Amino acid sequence: MSTSSRTIDVRLTLKITSKQGNMKFSYPEIAVSKPLPTLADNEFESVAWGIENYGEDFKKLVVNKPAVGDQDVKIEMKFCGICHSDVHFALNELAAGSGSGSMYPIVPGHELVGTVVEVGRAVSRVAVGDDVAVGCIRDSCMDCKSCDSGDENYCAKGFTHTYNSPKSPAYSHIGGNQEVQNFGGYTQFDVVHERFVCKIPDGMELSKAGPIVCAGVTMWDPLKHWGATQPGKKMDIGIVGIGGLGTMGIKLASALGHRVVAISRSARKEELARSKGAHGFVVSTDPKSVEKEAGKLDLILDTIPAHHSIMPYLTMLSSSGTVVQLGCVGPLMEYSQLVLMFRRLSIASSVIGGVPSTQEVLDFCNKHNIYSDVKIVTADRLNEVYDELQDNNSDATRYVLDIKESLKL
Amino acid sequence: MSTSSRTIDVRLTLKITSKQGNMKFSYPEIAVSKPLPTLADNEFESVAWGIENYGEDFKKLVVNKPAVGDQDVKIEMKFCGICHSDVHFALNELAAGSGSGSMYPIVPGHELVGTVVEVGRAVSRVAVGDDVAVGCIRDSCMDCKSCDSGDENYCAKGFTHTYNSPKSPAYSHIGGNQEVQNFGGYTQFDVVHERFVCKIPDGMELSKAGPIVCAGVTMWDPLKHWGATQPGKKMDIGIVGIGGLGTMGIKLASALGHRVVAISRSARKEELARSKGAHGFVVSTDPKSVEKEAGKLDLILDTIPAHHSIMPYLTMLSSSGTVVQLGCVGPLMEYSQLVLMFRRLSIASSVIGGVPSTQEVLDFCNKHNIYSDVKIVTADRLNEVYDELQDNNSDATRYVLDIKESLKL
Repeated sequence: MSTSSRTIDVRLTLKITSKQGNMKFSYPEIAVSKPLPTLADNEFESVAWGIENYGEDFKKLVVNKPAVGDQDVKIEMKFCGICHSDVHFALNELAAGSGSGSMYPIVPGHELVGTVVEVGRAVSRVAVGDDVAVGCIRDSCMDCKSCDSGDENYCAKGFTHTYNSPKSPAYSHIGGNQEVQNFGGYTQFDVVHERFVCKIPDGMELSKAGPIVCAGVTMWDPLKHWGATQPGKKMDIGIVGIGGLGTMGIKLASALGHRVVAISRSARKEELARSKGAHGFVVSTDPKSVEKEAGKLDLILDTIPAHHSIMPYLTMLSSSGTVVQLGCVGPLMEYSQLVLMFRRLSIASSVIGGVPSTQEVLDFCNKHNIYSDVKIVTADRLNEVYDELQDNNSDATRYVLDIKESLKL
Repeated sequence: MSTSSRTIDVRLTLKITSKQGNMKFSYPEIAVSKPLPTLADNEFESVAWGIENYGEDFKKLVVNKPAVGDQDVKIEMKFCGICHSDVHFALNELAAGSGSGSMYPIVPGHELVGTVVEVGRAVSRVAVGDDVAVGCIRDSCMDCKSCDSGDENYCAKGFTHTYNSPKSPAYSHIGGNQEVQNFGGYTQFDVVHERFVCKIPDGMELSKAGPIVCAGVTMWDPLKHWGATQPGKKMDIGIVGIGGLGTMGIKLASALGHRVVAISRSARKEELARSKGAHGFVVSTDPKSVEKEAGKLDLILDTIPAHHSIMPYLTMLSSSGTVVQLGCVGPLMEYSQLVLMFRRLSIASSVIGGVPSTQEVLDFCNKHNIYSDVKIVTADRLNEVYDELQDNNSDATRYVLDIKESLKL
């Protein structure tokens, strides 16, 4: 894997600095990189797989994790999903979530699945022996309107991402050396505040649980926010982009009882979309195909993570409908205000979901037997998996790292 | 008034033809103009004030109105508000609402206020002697999901504007010669289907009622749709643009019990905004002023009818907040998806409101003594009023045509 030249190409593509009104966005050009300090008294060591310095390959590392505090849960990891955004973070392509460049050494992973092996004395939500999952959120202020309503992902002071984030001493929920960044789920053990730990429901396949706390909740939370999880409600829902997020969206919306229309630039995706539960299919580049659903969809979840026109989706919305963008798009997007106006349409965007939503989608997926298609890999294959994800993000299959097997290597 | 040269200048400014995804917008360059046919058997004559041919001045006309059908209400007009959009239609600047260019002769007016002088035999909502108002909607299909829910303004087949619109023979709700366009409220008598007639509440000042069924409902309906009319609910609401719409929005939101922040490009508007009930004031071009309200507003109603940046407003929205654009903007608008994403923000737009909302806002304004500042004029001053409105649309004062006095001229 020729990491350096590859990452530089991608960074040039993604780099933007645009002044938008009073706000300025800038993706970082230089990553933060500093050697790990020695183990502190309030820490322990955990084997992990990460990238030590910017541009290098993945390798086995030993990182320091905080000792178990009163409200902490120590998890022995069994699996960790490999999300496409792990690629962005590991290769310093995006600053999203951290506010700064990637922090090396970096241990990715925000689809943690494991078993509780120790709990702090004040922990009440889980017990030793429970199978649990942790998603993208490791910390939040726990004291704002968003946190109070279970939307920790919109914490007014900013949530702390599971990895590639500085600790938040102001929140004082994460122990250990406060100068050292957080490391993610490609690791043997992790310690997480119980608030951000979800219970894996009885019967769920652990190897397939990881993507649910990332892709699953990313689709579930907007379905919930825009009314699609209300009991008995029947909606017409469009899902744009038939990759990992899109196929999860099709499965969830379909299991909720809605009519689901898959929308793709490519007619090749129809069979896949229908096999996941889509009732209709639209080729968004074909005006005749778009016209068939014109004015019919109440909600469209758009998973495209690149600049694109949303006008075909607006055409398909019914009066008072909403298109929600779930993929990160750096460049400015365009819309016609007049098109919104004459049917009271909305353009929105959301990112993952809070802890209550994460627990809900775990329970719902378990009940309805909804899983992503996964490929289980060991840590020695991380470099090639990252190469493949960079080349092709449109596949519906999610890779999952088998921690137990990786430790045997 | 040099109508011809003035209107041509404005038309060149507003004319756009932009391909947006699969949709194409085009403002018309050529107005429809044809002489009025002779009176049909199912019509009667009404004095009106309008523009007979494109480019001409206002003058007194006699137009044909449909005879009173079973569900029709005949109104003897007392006042009609002069909306800024009347200027656009009368001068063929916009196609909005009609789908084609302005239709000459044109009689503007969609803020009708008068007294019922005759009703069809099936009419049950109003009776002879009632004071009534009619807003922007003269007809709709009455048979779609939007009409069923009282959102006739979002009728799936398109609502029929009170003037500058062809009749809709398919709906078969408007009598008279089906080949002749509808004429608006600058007239002695009008005949309207009872569905689109609102009752003026007891005690309301008739001369001030007109703007409520246009500017009033334009602000009320989005307040209602986005939750601000729910009893007991307290929100932080921004109002952008301190003109006719904006001041009405400030008064309504304030009377509903919300904290209202007026937002303007100009610090000069602060005194006016506060005098109408605003609790706070932001100069949108001053980052420090914007910063004071950063993340605080649940809903922003943006009345700017020209291309502008919405980024300062997004900055001021709280998590899950919405900015609603209420002014027509022809050119494409821009937004940052990332800014929407990390606080689940929405950009929306709405246009006027349905009949139930119109009745609600009339009743609410009467109860809370909310009126636009109005200047009463007679028809001989229409040309100069139009000149003034073209020169300055930022004034909060609304002109109202006194029909009774105009008839004496």
